[in-house]
Amino acid sequence: MTESGVSAHGTIKLFGGTGCPGLAEEISQHLQVPLSGCTIAQFPNENIFVQLHESVRGQDVFLIQTTSSPVNYNVMEMLIFLDTLRRASPDRITVVIPYLAYARSDKKDQPRVPITARLVADLIGAAGADRYVTLDLHAGQIQGFFSIPGDVMTAFPILYDYFRSKDLNEAVVVAADLGFAKKARNLASELRRPLALVEKRRVAEDTEALTLVGEVRDHDVIIVADEVDTGRSIANAVHVVKENGARDVYLCFVHAVFSPSAVNRLRALPIKEIVTTNSIPIPPEKQPPNLTVLSVAGLLGEVIRRVHEGCSVGDMFKGYHLYK
Amino acid sequence: MTESGVSAHGTIKLFGGTGCPGLAEEISQHLQVPLSGCTIAQFPNENIFVQLHESVRGQDVFLIQTTSSPVNYNVMEMLIFLDTLRRASPDRITVVIPYLAYARSDKKDQPRVPITARLVADLIGAAGADRYVTLDLHAGQIQGFFSIPGDVMTAFPILYDYFRSKDLNEAVVVAADLGFAKKARNLASELRRPLALVEKRRVAEDTEALTLVGEVRDHDVIIVADEVDTGRSIANAVHVVKENGARDVYLCFVHAVFSPSAVNRLRALPIKEIVTTNSIPIPPEKQPPNLTVLSVAGLLGEVIRRVHEGCSVGDMFKGYHLYK
Amino acid sequence: MTESGVSAHGTIKLFGGTGCPGLAEEISQHLQVPLSGCTIAQFPNENIFVQLHESVRGQDVFLIQTTSSPVNYNVMEMLIFLDTLRRASPDRITVVIPYLAYARSDKKDQPRVPITARLVADLIGAAGADRYVTLDLHAGQIQGFFSIPGDVMTAFPILYDYFRSKDLNEAVVVAADLGFAKKARNLASELRRPLALVEKRRVAEDTEALTLVGEVRDHDVIIVADEVDTGRSIANAVHVVKENGARDVYLCFVHAVFSPSAVNRLRALPIKEIVTTNSIPIPPEKQPPNLTVLSVAGLLGEVIRRVHEGCSVGDMFKGYHLYK
Amino acid sequence: MTESGVSAHGTIKLFGGTGCPGLAEEISQHLQVPLSGCTIAQFPNENIFVQLHESVRGQDVFLIQTTSSPVNYNVMEMLIFLDTLRRASPDRITVVIPYLAYARSDKKDQPRVPITARLVADLIGAAGADRYVTLDLHAGQIQGFFSIPGDVMTAFPILYDYFRSKDLNEAVVVAADLGFAKKARNLASELRRPLALVEKRRVAEDTEALTLVGEVRDHDVIIVADEVDTGRSIANAVHVVKENGARDVYLCFVHAVFSPSAVNRLRALPIKEIVTTNSIPIPPEKQPPNLTVLSVAGLLGEVIRRVHEGCSVGDMFKGYHLYK
Amino acid sequence: MTESGVSAHGTIKLFGGTGCPGLAEEISQHLQVPLSGCTIAQFPNENIFVQLHESVRGQDVFLIQTTSSPVNYNVMEMLIFLDTLRRASPDRITVVIPYLAYARSDKKDQPRVPITARLVADLIGAAGADRYVTLDLHAGQIQGFFSIPGDVMTAFPILYDYFRSKDLNEAVVVAADLGFAKKARNLASELRRPLALVEKRRVAEDTEALTLVGEVRDHDVIIVADEVDTGRSIANAVHVVKENGARDVYLCFVHAVFSPSAVNRLRALPIKEIVTTNSIPIPPEKQPPNLTVLSVAGLLGEVIRRVHEGCSVGDMFKGYHLYK
Amino acid sequence: MTESGVSAHGTIKLFGGTGCPGLAEEISQHLQVPLSGCTIAQFPNENIFVQLHESVRGQDVFLIQTTSSPVNYNVMEMLIFLDTLRRASPDRITVVIPYLAYARSDKKDQPRVPITARLVADLIGAAGADRYVTLDLHAGQIQGFFSIPGDVMTAFPILYDYFRSKDLNEAVVVAADLGFAKKARNLASELRRPLALVEKRRVAEDTEALTLVGEVRDHDVIIVADEVDTGRSIANAVHVVKENGARDVYLCFVHAVFSPSAVNRLRALPIKEIVTTNSIPIPPEKQPPNLTVLSVAGLLGEVIRRVHEGCSVGDMFKGYHLYK
Repeated sequence: MTESGVSAHGTIKLFGGTGCPGLAEEISQHLQVPLSGCTIAQFPNENIFVQLHESVRGQDVFLIQTTSSPVNYNVMEMLIFLDTLRRASPDRITVVIPYLAYARSDKKDQPRVPITARLVADLIGAAGADRYVTLDLHAGQIQGFFSIPGDVMTAFPILYDYFRSKDLNEAVVVAADLGFAKKARNLASELRRPLALVEKRRVAEDTEALTLVGEVRDHDVIIVADEVDTGRSIANAVHVVKENGARDVYLCFVHAVFSPSAVNRLRALPIKEIVTTNSIPIPPEKQPPNLTVLSVAGLLGEVIRRVHEGCSVGDMFKGYHLYK
Repeated sequence: MTESGVSAHGTIKLFGGTGCPGLAEEISQHLQVPLSGCTIAQFPNENIFVQLHESVRGQDVFLIQTTSSPVNYNVMEMLIFLDTLRRASPDRITVVIPYLAYARSDKKDQPRVPITARLVADLIGAAGADRYVTLDLHAGQIQGFFSIPGDVMTAFPILYDYFRSKDLNEAVVVAADLGFAKKARNLASELRRPLALVEKRRVAEDTEALTLVGEVRDHDVIIVADEVDTGRSIANAVHVVKENGARDVYLCFVHAVFSPSAVNRLRALPIKEIVTTNSIPIPPEKQPPNLTVLSVAGLLGEVIRRVHEGCSVGDMFKGYHLYK
Repeated sequence: MTESGVSAHGTIKLFGGTGCPGLAEEISQHLQVPLSGCTIAQFPNENIFVQLHESVRGQDVFLIQTTSSPVNYNVMEMLIFLDTLRRASPDRITVVIPYLAYARSDKKDQPRVPITARLVADLIGAAGADRYVTLDLHAGQIQGFFSIPGDVMTAFPILYDYFRSKDLNEAVVVAADLGFAKKARNLASELRRPLALVEKRRVAEDTEALTLVGEVRDHDVIIVADEVDTGRSIANAVHVVKENGARDVYLCFVHAVFSPSAVNRLRALPIKEIVTTNSIPIPPEKQPPNLTVLSVAGLLGEVIRRVHEGCSVGDMFKGYHLYK
Repeated sequence: MTESGVSAHGTIKLFGGTGCPGLAEEISQHLQVPLSGCTIAQFPNENIFVQLHESVRGQDVFLIQTTSSPVNYNVMEMLIFLDTLRRASPDRITVVIPYLAYARSDKKDQPRVPITARLVADLIGAAGADRYVTLDLHAGQIQGFFSIPGDVMTAFPILYDYFRSKDLNEAVVVAADLGFAKKARNLASELRRPLALVEKRRVAEDTEALTLVGEVRDHDVIIVADEVDTGRSIANAVHVVKENGARDVYLCFVHAVFSPSAVNRLRALPIKEIVTTNSIPIPPEKQPPNLTVLSVAGLLGEVIRRVHEGCSVGDMFKGYHLYK
Repeated sequence: MTESGVSAHGTIKLFGGTGCPGLAEEISQHLQVPLSGCTIAQFPNENIFVQLHESVRGQDVFLIQTTSSPVNYNVMEMLIFLDTLRRASPDRITVVIPYLAYARSDKKDQPRVPITARLVADLIGAAGADRYVTLDLHAGQIQGFFSIPGDVMTAFPILYDYFRSKDLNEAVVVAADLGFAKKARNLASELRRPLALVEKRRVAEDTEALTLVGEVRDHDVIIVADEVDTGRSIANAVHVVKENGARDVYLCFVHAVFSPSAVNRLRALPIKEIVTTNSIPIPPEKQPPNLTVLSVAGLLGEVIRRVHEGCSVGDMFKGYHLYK
Repeated sequence: MTESGVSAHGTIKLFGGTGCPGLAEEISQHLQVPLSGCTIAQFPNENIFVQLHESVRGQDVFLIQTTSSPVNYNVMEMLIFLDTLRRASPDRITVVIPYLAYARSDKKDQPRVPITARLVADLIGAAGADRYVTLDLHAGQIQGFFSIPGDVMTAFPILYDYFRSKDLNEAVVVAADLGFAKKARNLASELRRPLALVEKRRVAEDTEALTLVGEVRDHDVIIVADEVDTGRSIANAVHVVKENGARDVYLCFVHAVFSPSAVNRLRALPIKEIVTTNSIPIPPEKQPPNLTVLSVAGLLGEVIRRVHEGCSVGDMFKGYHLYK
């Protein structure tokens, strides 16, 4: 940032929604730009109300709001906040969404279902965002759902660096689901370790069979996913690798969705360490043992700075092989 | 409807969201068209999922979903349901919203606030609705917020007829707020009775003064509003008319929003009868004494029929003087 | 404005349509920015032609055009001027419309009528305006009709200040129509005086009855409206308050539409003073006696300056309670 | 039309604006479909008001409105009529514009001027028309300005047939302006007669020189234009051909715009016959001597019928070579 | 189809582009609807020209055009054909694209690259298609790129049925790339056979290493892909499974892209049978030995019929587990 | 340009497509701004791939790409390049198209044909261009096809200046086709020489007759066109003027489309000099004898500079009478 913090888009203005106040505060500190004041309230009739405490006219506004639980409230708050911002005449509005809800509803895999991720992308545009920034979408294609420009970042390099520093020289990287095959391969490639996969198939109306494709016996295992929701797939994967003779088991994922049943399920598993990020705030009572939370504040703060100043964002990932 | 129920838009298909299942069922009976099956569920991660149980391809679909409490959930369910419908290739989608949330956020009366009603109108269009039907918006202008065509109906004739049948020949009609002045005048005009108004003004930072403009002494009073939310304005109005010597007090309004504090407040008031509609479902525990709930199912069912068949909707209100 | 008058949107450029040349000139003087040259002509076939005399490429353009009589000509001139501007590649186009025509056609209060105010809002956007500024719309909700951002200002504080300076300590503020109830209450609240209202209802096909709700006997009266068109409502209000024993009568309104019959009607009324603004030019032959015209040039000039520089517009109204 | 007059778009409904009531009536008779009732009025404040007298819900609506003088009023009436129609929920709205104003403002031939024809095309779409039908645009390219589909018809075959029946075997066809070169060539080709052209060039700031390119001496002459506005170009052309020895002079054009100065100018010219159409109503006092007005009612009525029934419109012109 | 072939969208009209004339003819025979005539030509300046030989006004038009080689020509022909169709005023236009080009450019997996699949989806909408039908997109998410509704079908059930009929009871299903993991799993699941995967990772700037994850020794192998382009991945996969002891090798994929180098590469491989579809025409000189081509004409014809009649398309796939 | 080359839109960035690399290089030298690096490639499956070698975030990007042969490839490359650019988040994208393909398909002159020029204008907008610059469109009206702003320049002044310097005092200017009548008149007017025209009409199904309207005997002739495609019209014109006694013949046109048959046709003609521009690259083997190619690099470079800096473009043509 220039010393004055002023670019062609005016001065940077940061706002935080109620979804991830701690992360917004961390980003603010990283950027040394204070969070601007605002009122976010619900009327007795549950209608959400937002009011900005200062003018943003002609400025470069960033709204930081995650859409984790309470999901539907948080989505609506984000949309109403965007409408509030656009009616206050800023130069540009960028919404920073560390975790984008509904990203798993990204294709019609059955008849007569929605593609809610496209809907959410459209709603964000309809509510007035000029740009968006988000992290590790369930599928890279979701970037193509947005009609507004944006930056989809990945926190995997933060996870790569952490695991590389642990020197797990005997580990096998395991994809918890066939859908994570490429993400697991990428970590395997970065660590120069072999890959295995957990295959799930339906064998009867209510019965699924799990198979490990590849070898883990007498090796440590790093199970890779993009997010952990109920933890059921993860629990399955842990059981399968243990049954196949794995030694220590590590979990590696970006988004700690942690639906209500997840915490007990995770606590019950023989896991050496769970490594994730703070894209979603994890309240203390939801934190499983052996949890390591890496911060994405520096990553998101740096993106905000580069968007504001008009510098390359792609250069942040030089040296990593991502998504190939 | 023609005998076969088929118009140029295909066969009528009715779906009900979770917001007002009873009203949807009543409308279905009125039309003698069954509600089509669908799954509406929330995943453990709170993401809403909708799936239709039958094909709607080429048909004339009506989704009935009110947006009362839980407001933000209901709005999101409506939007996701609309996306589900449009991806199932119907001929036309009409969303029937007995009560439209956020309608009171319809203008910027302070700096840096949203106009959420316009946002919601845009979201409904962005989610795929081709038309909308709704009841008694907070302001008639909100119809102009929609970019899709629609029909804004009024349940006041149902209320008019009810009060006319009561022969309250000594009553004065009182607007609970200056914003309801015209709606109260319309009822007064229908009943050929005089009008009075409760004026509220701010006299200090936290102090409001209430004044009755007009005369009610020794008369019954019918207090008119479009909706009752917390009941505070209504309570104020009841106190003011009572202090000014009113006899029996009746309440008349369309939308029973009934925020948590409303019920106790209403119970504590000296009200002879509370007359409203079922645009919002009122669970038994929220029903104040002396409550009369008039059904809008016939009204909405008739609109659906006329929209489907391409008949005049305006003719339904011949003989009533509305909004003048 | 910075000394050079250059912001991130380039240099300010002012253009005036033919609707309100005097006001445009006053605003130009207020801003110390000259009006840019242009040709506005009608060909013999009545087609309007506009040509700019200087380049506006990359600049911050403001077009000042009111849409009072000749209304349809003025609207078309505004739209064609906007098209001319956008094809000349400015950085931004803001249309400043002191009086917005068709604002009273803002809802469907009968079957099969237009919502012309929404249409006009859409046309302004379709013609190329990036922003708009206007004054005291018939209903605050009309701001929600625009899909482009804008600033809806109010000239009432100018009227408030004027009346406050007159020390009419015995006055009652009277709404000329129930539709002005809140605007009258606001003036009443600013002057700390009581409120009364004129109620009009249809009692037969062609007969309307007028009633004064509230008390004015032996008090001066300030009748409030947003605009005066034919003057019939105003004349009715004056008669009603006089019949109810009012002393001196003042009129207070923003927009002097003054349709042909208005002037004689106003001349014939026992009015002490008529106070309005120059949002619409009033030719000498249309000026009723006792007319006071307050200028909105400073208000609009200040908005233009703040829009250009990216400063808060909301701060201009601190200390006034508006629209509450 | 089917016997019942009902197609997949519902029943045909015809409305006529105030621009060309006689032509609308003729079209109605041609189609044997009555004009539907409507109120078109101007309030004292000049605001145009439209109300339909009958329901058009689900029907196939055609609005016939020309945009000749009063041009800007007629354009606004058309736009407001379209908004009225769309809010009344028809199945489809087709606007039939026998003469489209502003079509000569179709390119930027100087810096900083509008392309008003594109603007008007956009406004028609923004106001709610689904389709348009018009006649003989100034340039065929204007069809590409519309984003809605439409049919641009030509009345020249009606003029061709008329002139062919006159057996002017010695005539030369003369383009009144280089811009009509192809239209004149088409008539020349149909009549199998030679072509000449009037060339105009600017030779000094205020001086234009006219030259006849080609030969007319001792021949009758048919001067072709698409419209006659002030008549100045026509008068020039008549003088040039007379100076070059022409015998009888005929005029042939579609749109009788006839600006105020046109009639006297035409009366003063040695013209044998003026042949045009009723795309614009010509009041008796504006009719020059020797005027022949051919009706386009059959042409437009036939297009309406074919659009309604979904039959080929292109087939109407088989056997004519147009625009080549 | 009803006997008359007429639905609410008019009569079905089939057009075929030059991309896949044989398939279009087969679909026409399946539907017993003749292909409508049209001229498709390139002018000497390479500009593509399309003209329809018959009216489609008010009809239900289907354009069948694949976008295989010559890819960019075929895409442009499709867009220009769509523009031709929309200007001919049909009731509805559905473009049927058996193979959608550019589908592999569906995410930004490097900085500063396009998402061409989203671009193509937008271009198809901008050119006037109302709906689309396509087969087996590279990623299911691409359906979310379209703003128009559509049906993404899969030809895998045709391939499933074929392989099921072969009774390869000892086969292992192998994904040729991690990106096909789920599609291979689905076939494995249908055939109740085990799964293995070929993993590719970059080990130096220009060096990739291939690993087989899972077991194939002494088993027949069915290698699954969505398309075969250069055949390099397939060749790699064949080598890997052979090195790992596989017996007979079968190939199974939908789209035979067959870039120039593919045929020789395939000819050189020890493959027992290559099974694909006619979504892309394969000229005789490009047909490798042991090729089996299954037709998608019945599948696409059936979709066209159901879209036209407004019947369920989803029901076509009952009994298959797809995309899970 | 300011010394730093930075405007409110950031730094200027130039990219060149593969359509006209030489012209792009010349423009780069004129502006003293280097061409930015990029990869443009076709995969074996013919899919075009573009990748930028440097960040353009926040910058003012100009893409120079002509759409001459290979036309459809070049159009697709332009669209994909635009998508690449917009996803890289520049401040603004201007596409500079020296020759716009499909401009002759600009009206429906037959039933059921496209208006491809409007389609191409829409595709350019849909692909992400914010502005366009182009040269000498087939018809000025095509500027109205674009929904994005742009600058349509003319290279005729360069041609005027060249011919003026030749002192052809005895020349007649001849329009090669009636469609070029005004362009030829403009050159005639600049050179103060007379005008003649070649008229073409169809006299039987396959027979056209050519006539010279005007006089050329014993004069040199300058034949004017906007482009030369097959050269057939030009050859016809040359034959006609020679038959009518012309002396030396010169050709003057902007766009050297030169379809395959053009070169031999031109070589065979008795032409003294062919004068054109480099809006389309002419490979040596396609250059006819006596060819003079004037460069438009200075013209386009100057437009780019003025667009970037926000200076008047219209001023570049002061002193020339264009399009009148």
